Amino acid sequence: MVHELALVETECIGSGTRVWAFAHVCAGARIGKNCNLGDHSYVEHGATLGDGVTLKNGVCVWEGVTLEDGVFVGPNAVFTNDLTPRSPRLPSAKLRYSSKNWLVPTRVREGASIGANATIICGVTVGEYAFIGAGAVVTKDVAPHALVIGVPAKQVGWVCFCGRKLAEQNGGFWCEDCGEMEEKC
Amino acid sequence: MVHELALVETECIGSGTRVWAFAHVCAGARIGKNCNLGDHSYVEHGATLGDGVTLKNGVCVWEGVTLEDGVFVGPNAVFTNDLTPRSPRLPSAKLRYSSKNWLVPTRVREGASIGANATIICGVTVGEYAFIGAGAVVTKDVAPHALVIGVPAKQVGWVCFCGRKLAEQNGGFWCEDCGEMEEKC
Amino acid sequence: MVHELALVETECIGSGTRVWAFAHVCAGARIGKNCNLGDHSYVEHGATLGDGVTLKNGVCVWEGVTLEDGVFVGPNAVFTNDLTPRSPRLPSAKLRYSSKNWLVPTRVREGASIGANATIICGVTVGEYAFIGAGAVVTKDVAPHALVIGVPAKQVGWVCFCGRKLAEQNGGFWCEDCGEMEEKC
Repeated sequence: MVHELALVETECIGSGTRVWAFAHVCAGARIGKNCNLGDHSYVEHGATLGDGVTLKNGVCVWEGVTLEDGVFVGPNAVFTNDLTPRSPRLPSAKLRYSSKNWLVPTRVREGASIGANATIICGVTVGEYAFIGAGAVVTKDVAPHALVIGVPAKQVGWVCFCGRKLAEQNGGFWCEDCGEMEEKC
Repeated sequence: MVHELALVETECIGSGTRVWAFAHVCAGARIGKNCNLGDHSYVEHGATLGDGVTLKNGVCVWEGVTLEDGVFVGPNAVFTNDLTPRSPRLPSAKLRYSSKNWLVPTRVREGASIGANATIICGVTVGEYAFIGAGAVVTKDVAPHALVIGVPAKQVGWVCFCGRKLAEQNGGFWCEDCGEMEEKC
Repeated sequence: MVHELALVETECIGSGTRVWAFAHVCAGARIGKNCNLGDHSYVEHGATLGDGVTLKNGVCVWEGVTLEDGVFVGPNAVFTNDLTPRSPRLPSAKLRYSSKNWLVPTRVREGASIGANATIICGVTVGEYAFIGAGAVVTKDVAPHALVIGVPAKQVGWVCFCGRKLAEQNGGFWCEDCGEMEEKC
């Protein structure tokens, strides 16, 4: 499903993925199945989204950024792919941008959530099912299931697979409800 | 006045309201009179704007968010409506999104201003004529006429109806100029 | 080069400047040569961009903001031009918006970089080749070649013309590589 006011230029996009108004998916972007790309979102060539990824409005995913299956990215959250950007047309930056050595990759692992208006500085890995609080600035790796908040982001707890904050880290990462459900399966 | 490159799908929109290029107002959004919705703004079904509201560019107003009359929202300021978002397509989040229990409302009262690039975590009420500083992350209720800044946002003063910072909280909330004007009326 | 889904209304735009999809350049904006304006960017009447400026996606440049030659602005970074904004349709703000006295200019000098999702509060000057860290909130002037980060932004070091952090401020502002190159010239 591609909205009539969206622009999709890649052929590498899975079935069931929806792209909403004023969104732009560039040629060379790779996008899995059953994703949801909100209004005014942007996916650049060289960016990779797994299956079931949600991009809320205004999110840009740049070359070098990989979002694994089931990742959530809140509205206006921002990725980067260059630690010391300059305008490439600046004479003193010309040499630097003559190769791709400036490109620093970022990976967000399965099921993680990036809160609204958060900033992810490139070079980090956000662990499986981690949770980045709204407005946080992430400057280093985030452990699986960790909850981080603030500027710079610091860990303040753990979250369940479902997103709920855990009262304590109890050997696994299940909240009471999900743990019971898991045991029944 | 709807720009020819805007998309307005609601019928519930008051007279005198202007919607600018690449903005999207969804069916089911309720918008009052004489509002101004900047480029790349977005108003979701279930969102409510009073009269005379200003949304600067890139602002999204989600289901569950109510902006009362005369509210100002600065560029790229961000609202939320879910405290622990996960991608709804994630198996471990499926149960959670099978109902609307995840939805947490937010209310911004008459005349308040939300600064540029601020983040409002859902569940809060921003009081009448309060002022949220640019880049602040609001995590709890804000008192009427309060000025809050920082991450997380903390109160550092009071503001007049006109927006000016008050030297001291003087029983009312009028700056010298507005107070004189008020007495004359 | 103007993308077919962009909207360019100014005639004051230099040769070699590229404007990408869903971007909007208003009548009365002044834009130099060889700039690059990303998707969903916006340049208002009364805004000025020099030559070789890069605006990444979602950046708005308002009336009163001047970006000199070779400035880089990261994705979703935010400028402002009013220190105490209210919705102009609010009765208590009507007097204030009856003139242009509310307008506070901002200047970003040659070669400076504004990091992703940073917020620049109006009235400041960002010095030549300064570097604003991602997510920073700039509340006062930034010295040439200074590196500032955090909320509010504080200086934590110096950067070279090329953007690299300098181990120490050594009388000039050259990193080892650029210094050698400069000596050869």
